[in-house]
Amino acid sequence: MSAVIYPKVALIGLGLIAGSMAHAMRRAGLAETITGYARSAETRKIAREINLVDEVCDSALEAARDADLVVLCVPVGVMGAVAAEIAPGLKPGAVVTDVGSVKAAVIEAVAPHIPEGVHFIPGHPLAGTEHSGPRSGFAELFDNRWCLLVPVEGSDPGEVARLTRYWEGLGSNVDVMDAEHHDLVLAVTSHAPHLIAYTMVGVADDLRRVTDSEVIKYSAAGFRDFTRIAASDPTMWRDVFLSNKAATLEILGRFTEELFALQRAIRTEDGDHLHDYFTRTRAIRRGIIDAGQDTDAPDFGRAVASKAKARTE
Amino acid sequence: MSAVIYPKVALIGLGLIAGSMAHAMRRAGLAETITGYARSAETRKIAREINLVDEVCDSALEAARDADLVVLCVPVGVMGAVAAEIAPGLKPGAVVTDVGSVKAAVIEAVAPHIPEGVHFIPGHPLAGTEHSGPRSGFAELFDNRWCLLVPVEGSDPGEVARLTRYWEGLGSNVDVMDAEHHDLVLAVTSHAPHLIAYTMVGVADDLRRVTDSEVIKYSAAGFRDFTRIAASDPTMWRDVFLSNKAATLEILGRFTEELFALQRAIRTEDGDHLHDYFTRTRAIRRGIIDAGQDTDAPDFGRAVASKAKARTE
Ligand SMILES: NC(=O)c1ccc[n+]([C@@H]2O[C@H](COP(=O)([O-])OP(=O)(O)OC[C@H]3O[C@@H](n4cnc5c(N)ncnc54)[C@H](OP(=O)(O)O)[C@@H]3O)[C@@H](O)[C@H]2O)c1
Ligand SMILES: NC(=O)c1ccc[n+]([C@@H]2O[C@H](COP(=O)([O-])OP(=O)(O)OC[C@H]3O[C@@H](n4cnc5c(N)ncnc54)[C@H](OP(=O)(O)O)[C@@H]3O)[C@@H](O)[C@H]2O)c1
Repeated sequence: MSAVIYPKVALIGLGLIAGSMAHAMRRAGLAETITGYARSAETRKIAREINLVDEVCDSALEAARDADLVVLCVPVGVMGAVAAEIAPGLKPGAVVTDVGSVKAAVIEAVAPHIPEGVHFIPGHPLAGTEHSGPRSGFAELFDNRWCLLVPVEGSDPGEVARLTRYWEGLGSNVDVMDAEHHDLVLAVTSHAPHLIAYTMVGVADDLRRVTDSEVIKYSAAGFRDFTRIAASDPTMWRDVFLSNKAATLEILGRFTEELFALQRAIRTEDGDHLHDYFTRTRAIRRGIIDAGQDTDAPDFGRAVASKAKARTE
Repeated sequence: MSAVIYPKVALIGLGLIAGSMAHAMRRAGLAETITGYARSAETRKIAREINLVDEVCDSALEAARDADLVVLCVPVGVMGAVAAEIAPGLKPGAVVTDVGSVKAAVIEAVAPHIPEGVHFIPGHPLAGTEHSGPRSGFAELFDNRWCLLVPVEGSDPGEVARLTRYWEGLGSNVDVMDAEHHDLVLAVTSHAPHLIAYTMVGVADDLRRVTDSEVIKYSAAGFRDFTRIAASDPTMWRDVFLSNKAATLEILGRFTEELFALQRAIRTEDGDHLHDYFTRTRAIRRGIIDAGQDTDAPDFGRAVASKAKARTE
């Protein structure tokens, strides 16, 4: 039995997510042909050199033409424009999905461009790294991570089921939810944490009384964890915050309230409050490890990673 | 030539830091005898079972008696009490140091108890994991990390040089700075980041509209990074915040200011401001990787860590 789910898949955008999808599709044999397109000639050239997909096209329209599945893997802010561009090439019965980190704004931007007879089923894989670009993808990125599908009004249940099988073939678990809830959940589990990390790194960079060189040398005391997230792609994250404004600001408001309460506990030397708070937060970490969503190796297994690297050098 | 720097070393407290020091001392042969003491009978029992040190004593006084080097490896809030307890057993010419994450408050608490003729040279290794207890230590913890020595008035330069050689023998690089600057640097690189991470995890745990099970399943989108830090020992961290109040509150004040500025940029849709900010913060990450203070493997090399674990199972 063939594993092919969509004979021809088009990836628009050829960065971390699209590249990882290409590797994972090939690993599982989910497609017969993969086409791709990225905005810059440089990225297209690299994609050809490393044979990232079967055919790198010189326009999004050409890549999407006659595809069974088109995946929009571009920053959230340009999803609408890209959808408009590919619309004329979409064949009846084709499925269009996306991997954008925000859903309500993407649906609003993309849905109007989807022709009659084409299925639009938005999605979002909850997996990534701080790296980007055509060389950053790898087949294991989605293994045991969750992908959220966010069907719109009129999404065909059979097509949602097929897209579910496709993401499972890429290694993911799949859940379905509505766009508003998705955007709130992601504000908590991703968008607010990223903004906070960017802010903390910015503060450290700005201080006069502590030099950047001190911050760098002494970063292993905790700070370096924040710098990984804060090294993520600026365009992607600008777009995320601008497109998930309300939910992000809501969570940041809650965050600031709690932070003030903890600052007050420090100021008034309320050690019991601090101790209780720090005890309660451990349960979530245990839950994440038990759910297989993080490694239980100390320090994310950094020591292992450095040794594995040393072995290959 | 023998590598022994202090013939008899006493470790007061037998947790992550003391345990890692014991393993690293043995790796390099820096001591002839290592004694140890921890508050609970349970910890002392485990330490004996796993042969963590050469002799586990039943009081701090006994462990410290006639030691050439005594290292206080207990939470910052009890350093003073422990120093008072060991003082009668300290021999002339002995060196007392500590590994506490805060320096001004520890010096204030410990210095009055140090007898004439004993050298007190505070210290702080900038290395750790989220784990604690007698089984959590490992010999590599300090390799290529920094240890800060914070000599007090009258610290003998020759003894500071000896303690420097000792930390280098444990794998560290050593810098010297004063207590006030240490506490500010650590507020930036460690204390504020930890409080922020604890807060973010607390907020996620408190939300009604997003369940804990959703937070856990979808944590790979960024949030899980914060949970590692927020799983650190509650007693240790309560003590850190209470003993480094002023500097921590100062940095948190700066953080809140910046966070408000970024929230305003989101609200007013100032995409350029966001993009510039997110671009600037990448340089610090690059600096940290170039300085060998973090792995450049994507996602801290988590994939490698899980695979290495799978191989040994
Ligand atoms: N990174 C994550 O952790 C993560 C996780 C889940 C979802 N996502 C979402 O996945 C999407 C892609 O992210 P990524 O991490 O793969 O980013 P990436 O590595 O930066 O790749 C983005 C790709 O989009 C292309 N692109 C940008 N603007 C375009 C345009 N106007 N027309 C056509 N192509 C364009 C880029 O081309 P050039 O190379 O030529 O600029 C690049 O190939 C985003 O919507 C993001 O929100 C990301
Ligand atoms: N963890 C880090 O990342 C890190 C990094 C740098 C510096 N530090 C500093 O290192 C010190 C120790 O931290 P750790 O991570 O090693 O902690 P840990 O693993 O929790 O160990 C603390 C040890 O102190 C003992 N202890 C607690 N109260 C005591 C008392 N009143 N008298 C005698 N022993 C007592 C504990 O005994 P029981 O087991 O019997 O309770 C335990 O053996 C702290 O000052 C911390 O600020 C920690």
